[in-house]
Amino acid sequence: MERGETMIDNPFYGPAMQGDFRLFDLGNLILTCGETLRGAKLAYRTLGTLNADKSNAVLVTTWFSGTGKVMQDVYVGPDHALNPDRYFIIIVDQLGSGVSSSPHNTPAPQAMAKFPKLSISDDVAAQHRLLTEVFGIHELALVVGGSMGGQQVYEWAVTYPNMVARAAVIAATAKISFHQQVFIETLIEAITSDPAWAGGWYTAGTDLRAGMDRMARIVATAGWSAEFYQTERWRSVIGMSSLDDFINGVMKAYFEPMDPHALLTQMHKWQRADVSRHAGGDLAAALARITARTMILPISHDMFFPPGECEADCRLIPGAQLRVIGSPEGHMGLNGFAPEYMEQVNRYLTELLSD
Amino acid sequence: MERGETMIDNPFYGPAMQGDFRLFDLGNLILTCGETLRGAKLAYRTLGTLNADKSNAVLVTTWFSGTGKVMQDVYVGPDHALNPDRYFIIIVDQLGSGVSSSPHNTPAPQAMAKFPKLSISDDVAAQHRLLTEVFGIHELALVVGGSMGGQQVYEWAVTYPNMVARAAVIAATAKISFHQQVFIETLIEAITSDPAWAGGWYTAGTDLRAGMDRMARIVATAGWSAEFYQTERWRSVIGMSSLDDFINGVMKAYFEPMDPHALLTQMHKWQRADVSRHAGGDLAAALARITARTMILPISHDMFFPPGECEADCRLIPGAQLRVIGSPEGHMGLNGFAPEYMEQVNRYLTELLSD
Repeated sequence: MERGETMIDNPFYGPAMQGDFRLFDLGNLILTCGETLRGAKLAYRTLGTLNADKSNAVLVTTWFSGTGKVMQDVYVGPDHALNPDRYFIIIVDQLGSGVSSSPHNTPAPQAMAKFPKLSISDDVAAQHRLLTEVFGIHELALVVGGSMGGQQVYEWAVTYPNMVARAAVIAATAKISFHQQVFIETLIEAITSDPAWAGGWYTAGTDLRAGMDRMARIVATAGWSAEFYQTERWRSVIGMSSLDDFINGVMKAYFEPMDPHALLTQMHKWQRADVSRHAGGDLAAALARITARTMILPISHDMFFPPGECEADCRLIPGAQLRVIGSPEGHMGLNGFAPEYMEQVNRYLTELLSD
Repeated sequence: MERGETMIDNPFYGPAMQGDFRLFDLGNLILTCGETLRGAKLAYRTLGTLNADKSNAVLVTTWFSGTGKVMQDVYVGPDHALNPDRYFIIIVDQLGSGVSSSPHNTPAPQAMAKFPKLSISDDVAAQHRLLTEVFGIHELALVVGGSMGGQQVYEWAVTYPNMVARAAVIAATAKISFHQQVFIETLIEAITSDPAWAGGWYTAGTDLRAGMDRMARIVATAGWSAEFYQTERWRSVIGMSSLDDFINGVMKAYFEPMDPHALLTQMHKWQRADVSRHAGGDLAAALARITARTMILPISHDMFFPPGECEADCRLIPGAQLRVIGSPEGHMGLNGFAPEYMEQVNRYLTELLSD
């Protein structure tokens, strides 16, 4: 991509850090908000081989702050349910991930603060084009993702029921909760209250270290469970020597190389994800459209998407099965820090895939 | 009190808003941190009559951001367990409450940013002097408080076991959790990151509206439970017309008249409350010192002090009883918005008082 004066070259989102990915040129992507994102790019990577009848395709989506690299490293491999020896696995970075089109890598006049507002449906529209135009895939054996990735799975299952044979939603709900709406706003405010934010026209993401650090600590308060803290799993599971060491060395360090605008673009989508708008606000009617064999996988100690809320969605989906992943980490368990977490995910996804 | 140039006259903490209270002049209060708070004042109010053998005294403590007025209005009355017709009820504002000695009402050289750091043990030392010096009380029929008020109850029961016949801890733990340490830090950062904070030398609390508003929203994310939000109790119980109406009209409005330094002084204590330091860090040994008939009253949906953590404390207190207060509000249920909350508190406190 060419970079204009207002763009920021952030090496964190380049191949040195993100590994081997490709960019699909979407051209002009007309967004749900009505604006057109010009020269839109969707980052993706594939593992395994598409079989002759194109029946072994698995789509993997990304969560807030995550990239395709994380999904590849944590969820895909010969020892996992998402085994490239059996499946053709397409991992797609969400729009605004920092690797796909994002404010900092989009040229004027849509750079930085002028980047349009996105929604989860824009992701699914872009992913649909990738699958059909690049690979000629018209049915997915499975769509799977966690957190914002799970919001994309819901959007897929409701928007393209005929294309989704199986859906696995990890740690997400079909409609953003009121609690999450408030929580995400605290993250937005932590970043944009930094004077270096400068109305979105900062020249380096690291200028906003103070705001990003505050945001990281707020994420820490709900991303990990109270039990995770009280049983000092930041020591036993994560390997940090003190609480400060954990906040500084894990939470702040994790977000530090990322672009603030990219995170805010994702937060905007995260805060508004809601498949009920496909049925005029009727969530039950929207979820009743799902024909995929669906598995809902909340995380036991999740404070973002509590198991009870995920279970309520599950009851509205024809034939959907609930499998609660036991993980004292809470929402952040998604990153697969504890071996027990991935063991459960693999077991449940294998069950779904062999169904 | 005389006010120097650096002091702030905040009418919220005066009699027009706080009702009828008195100030006990503590003189020079030597603090746990080693510094002396000069001309220290403790705000209190009493209801009812102390009987001849001084056996009917009940001490009521205050929580973060709360004052004696709130405790009087919500917890005390002829229809409550804390009935002034039977008990002599002393409600004490904690140090730093804004009414008792606080940064904004203390003269130089200890005003504002130079106000010393306090601890919960300073509160209990000051309250002990009030009870013994002003009223000649040497045994309390009950010490009761919620949240930071409960932290003071623990401090009382461990420090002065012979003076506390009964102790009731509502929604608090004996030792601050790691999770709360992180959470409280996000509140501190929300306020002190406001440029108007000016290193603690602002000239009006309302100059920090932006930081105070951010703090209010973060409190909202954990002060109320996920279920409170999802079942729209901000509508049915609190009576607000939308989520924004609730955040603006309840959370921001609640904190707006308060002094930022007062809240930060309280946060410093809240973040460090820990009776285990009385026994060299051994919580079990510290709690084993309690001789009061003790009742531990967590709130079912509390995200500040989860019932499981309160129950763990309860098991370490000789003969202590656990009563979980069912309240979907979560921690903020303390304010008695739902009638069911006060009904349960009254029932359990009556049970304890008749024991």
